Amino acid sequence: MAEIGIGMLGYAFMGKAHSNAFHKLAYMTWPPPLVPNLVGIAGRNAEAVELAATRYGYEYATDDWETLVDDREIGLFDNGGPNSLHAEPTIRAAQAGKHVVCEKPLGRDADESYRIWQEVARTGVKHMCAFNYRFVPAVRLAREMIEAGELGEIRHFRCRYLQDWGDDPSLDTWRFSAEQAGGGAIGDLMSHVVDVARFLNGEISAVSGFAKTFIVGREVDDAAEAAVEFENGSVGTFESTRFAHGHRNALQWEINGTKGAIAFDMERFADLQVFRKGDDRVRGFTTVQVSEESHPFAQWWWPPGHVVGWGDTFVHELHHMLDAIANDKDVAPYAATFEDGYRCAEVCDAIARGGRQALSYRSL
Amino acid sequence: MAEIGIGMLGYAFMGKAHSNAFHKLAYMTWPPPLVPNLVGIAGRNAEAVELAATRYGYEYATDDWETLVDDREIGLFDNGGPNSLHAEPTIRAAQAGKHVVCEKPLGRDADESYRIWQEVARTGVKHMCAFNYRFVPAVRLAREMIEAGELGEIRHFRCRYLQDWGDDPSLDTWRFSAEQAGGGAIGDLMSHVVDVARFLNGEISAVSGFAKTFIVGREVDDAAEAAVEFENGSVGTFESTRFAHGHRNALQWEINGTKGAIAFDMERFADLQVFRKGDDRVRGFTTVQVSEESHPFAQWWWPPGHVVGWGDTFVHELHHMLDAIANDKDVAPYAATFEDGYRCAEVCDAIARGGRQALSYRSL
Amino acid sequence: MAEIGIGMLGYAFMGKAHSNAFHKLAYMTWPPPLVPNLVGIAGRNAEAVELAATRYGYEYATDDWETLVDDREIGLFDNGGPNSLHAEPTIRAAQAGKHVVCEKPLGRDADESYRIWQEVARTGVKHMCAFNYRFVPAVRLAREMIEAGELGEIRHFRCRYLQDWGDDPSLDTWRFSAEQAGGGAIGDLMSHVVDVARFLNGEISAVSGFAKTFIVGREVDDAAEAAVEFENGSVGTFESTRFAHGHRNALQWEINGTKGAIAFDMERFADLQVFRKGDDRVRGFTTVQVSEESHPFAQWWWPPGHVVGWGDTFVHELHHMLDAIANDKDVAPYAATFEDGYRCAEVCDAIARGGRQALSYRSL
Amino acid sequence: MAEIGIGMLGYAFMGKAHSNAFHKLAYMTWPPPLVPNLVGIAGRNAEAVELAATRYGYEYATDDWETLVDDREIGLFDNGGPNSLHAEPTIRAAQAGKHVVCEKPLGRDADESYRIWQEVARTGVKHMCAFNYRFVPAVRLAREMIEAGELGEIRHFRCRYLQDWGDDPSLDTWRFSAEQAGGGAIGDLMSHVVDVARFLNGEISAVSGFAKTFIVGREVDDAAEAAVEFENGSVGTFESTRFAHGHRNALQWEINGTKGAIAFDMERFADLQVFRKGDDRVRGFTTVQVSEESHPFAQWWWPPGHVVGWGDTFVHELHHMLDAIANDKDVAPYAATFEDGYRCAEVCDAIARGGRQALSYRSL
Repeated sequence: MAEIGIGMLGYAFMGKAHSNAFHKLAYMTWPPPLVPNLVGIAGRNAEAVELAATRYGYEYATDDWETLVDDREIGLFDNGGPNSLHAEPTIRAAQAGKHVVCEKPLGRDADESYRIWQEVARTGVKHMCAFNYRFVPAVRLAREMIEAGELGEIRHFRCRYLQDWGDDPSLDTWRFSAEQAGGGAIGDLMSHVVDVARFLNGEISAVSGFAKTFIVGREVDDAAEAAVEFENGSVGTFESTRFAHGHRNALQWEINGTKGAIAFDMERFADLQVFRKGDDRVRGFTTVQVSEESHPFAQWWWPPGHVVGWGDTFVHELHHMLDAIANDKDVAPYAATFEDGYRCAEVCDAIARGGRQALSYRSL
Repeated sequence: MAEIGIGMLGYAFMGKAHSNAFHKLAYMTWPPPLVPNLVGIAGRNAEAVELAATRYGYEYATDDWETLVDDREIGLFDNGGPNSLHAEPTIRAAQAGKHVVCEKPLGRDADESYRIWQEVARTGVKHMCAFNYRFVPAVRLAREMIEAGELGEIRHFRCRYLQDWGDDPSLDTWRFSAEQAGGGAIGDLMSHVVDVARFLNGEISAVSGFAKTFIVGREVDDAAEAAVEFENGSVGTFESTRFAHGHRNALQWEINGTKGAIAFDMERFADLQVFRKGDDRVRGFTTVQVSEESHPFAQWWWPPGHVVGWGDTFVHELHHMLDAIANDKDVAPYAATFEDGYRCAEVCDAIARGGRQALSYRSL
Repeated sequence: MAEIGIGMLGYAFMGKAHSNAFHKLAYMTWPPPLVPNLVGIAGRNAEAVELAATRYGYEYATDDWETLVDDREIGLFDNGGPNSLHAEPTIRAAQAGKHVVCEKPLGRDADESYRIWQEVARTGVKHMCAFNYRFVPAVRLAREMIEAGELGEIRHFRCRYLQDWGDDPSLDTWRFSAEQAGGGAIGDLMSHVVDVARFLNGEISAVSGFAKTFIVGREVDDAAEAAVEFENGSVGTFESTRFAHGHRNALQWEINGTKGAIAFDMERFADLQVFRKGDDRVRGFTTVQVSEESHPFAQWWWPPGHVVGWGDTFVHELHHMLDAIANDKDVAPYAATFEDGYRCAEVCDAIARGGRQALSYRSL
Repeated sequence: MAEIGIGMLGYAFMGKAHSNAFHKLAYMTWPPPLVPNLVGIAGRNAEAVELAATRYGYEYATDDWETLVDDREIGLFDNGGPNSLHAEPTIRAAQAGKHVVCEKPLGRDADESYRIWQEVARTGVKHMCAFNYRFVPAVRLAREMIEAGELGEIRHFRCRYLQDWGDDPSLDTWRFSAEQAGGGAIGDLMSHVVDVARFLNGEISAVSGFAKTFIVGREVDDAAEAAVEFENGSVGTFESTRFAHGHRNALQWEINGTKGAIAFDMERFADLQVFRKGDDRVRGFTTVQVSEESHPFAQWWWPPGHVVGWGDTFVHELHHMLDAIANDKDVAPYAATFEDGYRCAEVCDAIARGGRQALSYRSL
């Protein structure tokens, strides 16, 4: 089977998640479109990146990401570094002819995201912004149902991403640095909200909202709230926060159409709630465990009722990218491209600026 | 036991709910602060109101509400009529020395609500705006926990009221008439959202949002969306809609503080979800069925585990009013006064106007 | 409207529940089949029964139940006394020509239950054993669906009734007295399990189980466990306990047929869980809030989404009895007759005896 | 790092689950106690086993399991074949000095299970019966809490394993063959019920129940029901069935003690429901998502709120076995040994025989 050399930037959370996925997809998504060959991994801490190379089976480790860019054995550059390291390495890798995956948010703001998109698109390589929640089986099933018109005309989409770890003034991480992260809850969490909204319900036409920083002196926002309108006429609310005590990692959304409704809560990762109009006697949301043979991604896994986990979303996502490369398919619409990464950033920026504003997106 | 004469305006949905409550509180909230004596009931349809008098046991029926205002046997005037009939009868009854209950929303807008409040407050009678969801056992328990500081400093409050019956262009009801109803989902549902928000989390300082009418030609709004800030520094979202297919009557809210969180969904009427920080091993929301002896209102009902229903919120509410009258207690803060009805209307009006705006309330 | 005189034996828990229901049904189930006239209430504690008469509006109180039996104004004798007072007053009232309602369990064992049934059936009056959970809207809806064949051939029925208050050696109540109560968790709770099983799934053909007393010296059982077979070939388990810490009052059952399944948990009183085979994509249990217009009992109450409470099951039940009396209808099959009370007792006795045994019921 | 050669018997469902686990544990449970080296895989279908070797990366495939037994590079023999192939290959591998893992049920009945245990124990190798549900994070957490006495004295344990695929007379699989499978729902599902019961609540002292075959002519049972008593005095019910329409794979259990209660449902794989006595105001089950740093197995995975899947239970299980081998630790009590496999079989056989019987276990 054909192989593709992988160069990974980042060895911590995302480095682990992506490396695991490259291993698993080689035998789970059988036959794999390409067999990933883990060539090199880069990171700033030489000792840590060396350990990661051993652990995950990369041929070498380096503290200089340019080594990966220069390595001709690498066909796919996967950027899981901090936000401030998204632009230059990703653009340079693409310019070196490598296909590129970049973690979300694409850039630290819409301008930077636009630039990354433009520069990379110009090279002609495949590009994917790694919004992995598009690859949750329940989310993909929702997309398929909406696309098939099963919800009718959409009236509402509401979404919130609730985490709880930010409420500690003594915490210090690159995620609180404006220079390194760009934004706070907006870039980290609202970007997921906006992406899943665009994935399921199309473009946003206007937002009305604001950002909030609870901790005095923190450079980035802690939470953001918005009322939103979509181009299809539906309306709803968006929220992202690192201060929602009670929730570790709750991406929750609901979409209501004239024929039905769908709801999802990542705290019940395997399930989709589906409502369909019609029978007023047996009327209500059905709890669908998304693991049937006919469900997205299920053919690679286990019999119905045996669920996959959060880490497996990356198996689906990176399989999708390898399939696009191997068979010269579009990365869109099931995965986010860099254009999606940019469009997401425009909405995030508009919320961060506050007040009410119509949205218009720049084009290629 | 001392009695109080009741004059009821309205015989349909709210007339039924309030009449049932007057009957039940007489033996359930034993001993009752005052025994309600059902004197007269008024409505525009003479035949229907006559039937209601027979059914609910009022001494007489009338199609002229002034009869109630003039009746010296009536000590409490209870206004359950359409919104356009809130102002004049209520003010006139108060001026005739009767205590007054008025269904929500108090007036059709903030101006009318302010006028009702001012005119009635001047007479010195007791006044209550019938936001009955303050009297759901789970909601009252939440209030008690928040008041006791059990959630710490509040970071977030989000609330939505989702119904589904509005999505039919052929529907015709006074609720779609601007003259009779004032607003649509805003007056009907957002008023509940704002009242429960103020009840649990205090005054709103700014809103950023808009109203939406889906059905062409409809005079009132079908939905409204807002991002909100509270005077205590917390932030969140509000939503009200009659187009949320899948939900008949879902008032859902969640409040997150630095020490814990509480959530409620009227589709699980008897339950409160409570999260308390501390133990990371047994960590999560606890589903509390609010029917323990120590829980609000439970002493009047059944043993733990035997729940009350939606209609019983009116038993609690009207008991509260009779207790205030009998013992000359303040109606606030556990029930909404006409001042609360007015303040609620200011927030609703600001959302209806759209855009971002700071709120300031007029005073007595 | 025609009236019927009510004589009530018992003034505490069941006396309150039934008295409330007689009041409410007079205006809620409009027009009522008969208007209940609360004539007399009897109990052993003269002071307490006098207070109950005042509170609930009975014309008189008495500490001698024979007064009720002798009162010609009383057309319906309602027995809510302790189990040891079920047989004689009920039989005597029936022999005096009064229709009779008796709380469950009918007698303290199958022999006594059989005797009550036989003696009362001989008089020709209407008789109802007050298994009120048949009148939970969700339970009635389940019955209607099963009766209509919507579940296909039944494979399984499992049910348990979990309470938690018995785990205290210092507790003293008539419920722990073999003479007064007959059994413990079996008579009190397993009787509900067996009745709801028979209501939904027909006769039990064999049981295999045992009773358990945890507290040394307690005269009655604390819990009982059984594997069961039904005449229709389905199998399952039964459980009743007063030692299930965590549950105040959880009657939980599930029924699986070849076409679908239904589940209920009294801790979510308003809801029914319904599964229907067919679509493997949207596959799972649907949470039905049983308050739609087309749902059982809903026509008497509120719009969809506004739920009734536990106490309202008695409104449905006593309405059913008055309707049977007024219109000379059978009490069965929607309510339990004394025959049902007896048949239930045979199953309970078989479980109490332990071991495996086939069941055969005695006939009239 | 030290390696261990793996010989795998079976390439389908369990072969895939175990092979995946050997791959993942090598980098996830870092540093692994031993690095698994996938030496050989055996199966009856030569073509299929050849493909499996390629897919999962075994050095060779064979259709003769004796090849694995004879291979000196193999240090761990993992038996994932059908039940009729458990005894001989497992015993022979152990006699060849290999450590052995055998899928559940250990043998086709208690006699065969006893023989496997005896023969293998005599060789001194490590042996594990692969009851993987002991390695669900929520189940392990429950075990830790019970072991720490957090539930007090146990009163009840009830468990059922509900699947739905058996209700089709045309189905044909080795699982319906008495010769190949031993039992039906009892061996396949009740064995899990009994093992989790013994894991959490200790030995069973008596059972009272029966097996049921719905499909005429089927050689094995389709369902089984039992009332049970434990040596610690607690009581409950067991159920296993392949006819519970509505449930794909629902292992559900609840344990009630004098201080608290715990419940689990595999249809909510990541969660544990925990009740603790004490506070009557905030009283109820807490939904714990078992992914906190302090939770079992979490240190190998992701931050809190990012859940693992069903397949990952095998990572935990096989890591446990490698750790026992590498560090000469006992496999018990956190994993099941062959003794546990045998004891489980005694309970299953007693249920299959029907009627009420006390249990006594044979000893080594």
